[in-house]
Amino acid sequence: MRFYDCKIAPSPRRVRVFLAEKGIEIETVQVDLASGEQFGEAFRNINPDCVVPVLELDDGSYLTEVVAICQYLEALYPASPLLGGSAEERARVSMWNAKVEQSGLFAVMEALRNFSKGFRGRAVSGAASHEQIPELAERGRRRIFEFFDRLDGRLGEAAYLAGEDYSMADISALVFVDFAKRVKADIPDDCSNLRRWYGDVSRRPAAAA
Amino acid sequence: MRFYDCKIAPSPRRVRVFLAEKGIEIETVQVDLASGEQFGEAFRNINPDCVVPVLELDDGSYLTEVVAICQYLEALYPASPLLGGSAEERARVSMWNAKVEQSGLFAVMEALRNFSKGFRGRAVSGAASHEQIPELAERGRRRIFEFFDRLDGRLGEAAYLAGEDYSMADISALVFVDFAKRVKADIPDDCSNLRRWYGDVSRRPAAAA
Repeated sequence: MRFYDCKIAPSPRRVRVFLAEKGIEIETVQVDLASGEQFGEAFRNINPDCVVPVLELDDGSYLTEVVAICQYLEALYPASPLLGGSAEERARVSMWNAKVEQSGLFAVMEALRNFSKGFRGRAVSGAASHEQIPELAERGRRRIFEFFDRLDGRLGEAAYLAGEDYSMADISALVFVDFAKRVKADIPDDCSNLRRWYGDVSRRPAAAA
Repeated sequence: MRFYDCKIAPSPRRVRVFLAEKGIEIETVQVDLASGEQFGEAFRNINPDCVVPVLELDDGSYLTEVVAICQYLEALYPASPLLGGSAEERARVSMWNAKVEQSGLFAVMEALRNFSKGFRGRAVSGAASHEQIPELAERGRRRIFEFFDRLDGRLGEAAYLAGEDYSMADISALVFVDFAKRVKADIPDDCSNLRRWYGDVSRRPAAAA
């Protein structure tokens, strides 16, 4: 297998932390998103959607999308499970992971890509060009803070997002909180549950991945 | 178990088609989204994110998010699998399902919710109020057509999105194509692979769910 990564991007970081938590080492290729390597012909043959992460399988086929890659890796390396044990636990991990993607990670993407000069003409991740919408950047910022509150509420009920065990949903939320710093959005002081959880998950060695 | 549904909404339809394909019958409660029942205190206690679908489990707890609900139902009712067989097949279903959500269903949501009078002040699904952004409605429409092309390309390579077998990814894409009609976006004539596939999946009895 071969992992197509980009050190500065949040989506592949979710896979990197997942791999580090499980102690898996895979041959890794850095894709230079800053210079637009993802839009070149070579990378389009790997992923026509022009995004990382990508996992190249041993038969030469490619898997994309964080959830799909992590699901495949969990099946191959079931030790230290990060996607839950029982059917219900697995569903709760998927549920929280989906909420973090839709209400957290996508909100930061909206805020960053519709604001930063570096993303002019590339306001939506992927192959197509789209101009920035400044109002959407502002809405994205508001949604980030709404989601900080949502997470804070949940983490007042349970130690981790999906329940008592650290999971993929926490990895996604850790990456969300760190990604939000790129638009100068930090956990508010009154979100004490979220701050407690963030300190906890940030101290795990895999968080450095 | 009890299923919280809304007949006119696309997300719960994905679960309805999934249930119908598997021949599962569950007690179903209609939530009246048109009158705002999802924002009332009774429904907030079921799902504070104020969206359907929701699956109430036998212990009285709730599962939300389409992927999580279907994953749980597949574990309980493994016959007629819709999430793939092998680890690789399962990952390919998740991958295409994620692409359809992000680039298809969310694009229609952007186009519809930022345009239709009925969604004023509710441009983002969920508990919080957000004003419409007309430019985003236009961008959503462009993204719908980009994704029609993407699906057409994929369906020139394989009978169904995840490969040779009908799966959850096809259910999500069927719901995307039908949902796009709400913003008067239809499959272009030159997308012959997508049209062939759409005729095929629409004729399945479960598509009426």
